[in-house]
Amino acid sequence: MQRLDKILDSIKPPDEALFKKARERLDKMAIPRGSLGRLEEFAQRIVAITGTLSPEIKNKKVVVFAGDHGVVEEGVSVFPQDVTMQMVYNFNREGAGINVLSRQVGADVIVVDIGVAGDLHPEEGLLLKKVAKGTKNMTKAPAMSREEALKALLIGVDLSYDLKSQKVDIIGTGDMGIGNTTPSSAITAVLTGQKVEDVTGRGTGINNEMLANKVKVIKKAIQKNHPNPNDPLDVLAKVGGFEIAGIAGLIIGSAFHKIPVVIDGFISTTAAMVAVSLKTEIKEYIFASHKSVERGHKVLLKRLKQKPMFDLSMRLGEGTGAVLGISLIESGVRIINEVLTFDEAGVSEAVR
Amino acid sequence: MQRLDKILDSIKPPDEALFKKARERLDKMAIPRGSLGRLEEFAQRIVAITGTLSPEIKNKKVVVFAGDHGVVEEGVSVFPQDVTMQMVYNFNREGAGINVLSRQVGADVIVVDIGVAGDLHPEEGLLLKKVAKGTKNMTKAPAMSREEALKALLIGVDLSYDLKSQKVDIIGTGDMGIGNTTPSSAITAVLTGQKVEDVTGRGTGINNEMLANKVKVIKKAIQKNHPNPNDPLDVLAKVGGFEIAGIAGLIIGSAFHKIPVVIDGFISTTAAMVAVSLKTEIKEYIFASHKSVERGHKVLLKRLKQKPMFDLSMRLGEGTGAVLGISLIESGVRIINEVLTFDEAGVSEAVR
Repeated sequence: MQRLDKILDSIKPPDEALFKKARERLDKMAIPRGSLGRLEEFAQRIVAITGTLSPEIKNKKVVVFAGDHGVVEEGVSVFPQDVTMQMVYNFNREGAGINVLSRQVGADVIVVDIGVAGDLHPEEGLLLKKVAKGTKNMTKAPAMSREEALKALLIGVDLSYDLKSQKVDIIGTGDMGIGNTTPSSAITAVLTGQKVEDVTGRGTGINNEMLANKVKVIKKAIQKNHPNPNDPLDVLAKVGGFEIAGIAGLIIGSAFHKIPVVIDGFISTTAAMVAVSLKTEIKEYIFASHKSVERGHKVLLKRLKQKPMFDLSMRLGEGTGAVLGISLIESGVRIINEVLTFDEAGVSEAVR
Repeated sequence: MQRLDKILDSIKPPDEALFKKARERLDKMAIPRGSLGRLEEFAQRIVAITGTLSPEIKNKKVVVFAGDHGVVEEGVSVFPQDVTMQMVYNFNREGAGINVLSRQVGADVIVVDIGVAGDLHPEEGLLLKKVAKGTKNMTKAPAMSREEALKALLIGVDLSYDLKSQKVDIIGTGDMGIGNTTPSSAITAVLTGQKVEDVTGRGTGINNEMLANKVKVIKKAIQKNHPNPNDPLDVLAKVGGFEIAGIAGLIIGSAFHKIPVVIDGFISTTAAMVAVSLKTEIKEYIFASHKSVERGHKVLLKRLKQKPMFDLSMRLGEGTGAVLGISLIESGVRIINEVLTFDEAGVSEAVR
């Protein structure tokens, strides 16, 4: 905990003065004031986070953490557990949704095995950081020990150091883990105090009967483990997952290094909720990309005071929403860097 | 009219069978069924429109039509009329919002003078197709004669032939014209039957007093000219504008040539309303990009049965929303072309 506490302590909010200076620069541009809406907001936030009036969004990374979940024994997903491992290989083969969208946006995909159930053979571009072969079935025991959860979280933090040294301009978060909407709903229920029913959705597509079972399973896991809502690491350990911990750590590390971090859907936002519960200033470094179909997502976004950028009814995960969000942030940054001012363009200003 | 009628007559809906075939292809991909939401819908629609199961979105053009409006004499905008011409030069200097976002997305910008009040000197990349030096003040006379409106509309149609011969994959529409939310609101009120108050907004940022005046001006123009709601060309001529006519023509031509066309905000959507009022099947070729801040936009989108892709509180025009929409459509097309199937990726399917 000591190392984590030190990092959390040193996280400060972005530069308020630069946020205002970015506004002044935008107001001189040859467009009606504020007419590019949220693109201008993104530009202002990036300036304040990165500490420069001429930020760049060129070196873009999407990190996909993969982990398995013992709770799949309880029949909470329509996909077999093997799919987590198969998809990790698919990511590395560049054949998945996140690869396709990242190619378009010019982002690199980094895949991290942080808790996949099977043994993955080493491949280039795949980081083998397995803490354990999946979590335990949380209806019977804590998903992870506190030590395991902390270890997984610090893997995410450590990765942020690597990305900082690679001069990464923006980070997107992604997840892969069959069954992982179940721990996400459990964490959401505990940290927000909402009813399990109100934060539990259909994941990859379960029917009504399986949904009713999923709600029961989550309630059972919470009753069994008594996670303490005032101790985010306790919640993460008892009803969470390795990939959620890794993402939470990466978000913490991004805030520490002042790298903007774009979160994906429900799983990533659950991790963000854990991170922000540990240190409230972290939310200033987070950009919510899309509004997921998962119903728990809305509750989290409200708590985190995040307005998603778009709603395209997506629910794939992998970081697919995050990478599209990165592209929109890049749009805002290009606007502030490249649009000519009224003076430069020889355009008359508004008469009021 | 004869030529226009022939073109309108030959517009048929997209290929329904291919729409279904695209769905079958998507359902084989190694993602939970439908989990990429509207990106999948975009891919299906592009397949159906272009008539191929392997469509491409590579050659992308955004066309910005520029025109002036005599009605600015009535004090409906905070910007002086000169700005239209100044911005045309700014577009060609690559310094405007639409240039910046088009560079990001890999789209070319084509600027068309279809009715700018001043004399533009020839520049590369600028199409000089002026029908007249701005419309007449529509509170005193019809904005355009029927012949002028038809001529402007056919300039848009003609351009679609050029783009077809250049093998353009997708077209975005944009506008520049100080005062052009005024004719747009007028057309919207007449074609949808809504009250002028309910479809009139603040444009580039007028105050309450100017807004009240703008509503009065539009009502006066409608009373003066009696546009016939059952004759879209009559409405376009009497209370419209040259750039609106040009965009409407380009949309008609896109449908005729089976090129998907992405519309921008309120001005482009008004033009789309004119086009679809002339031939209802045209709406199947249109993609609405963003939801503009302008209040009339919502009314039009509903009539056109279009669900915008995103809402970033933008209200710039120029095609800035359209070009971001093109990027999201490209995402959908890349998904259907590049994501591996369950078989190809060696990923197990869902068990139900």
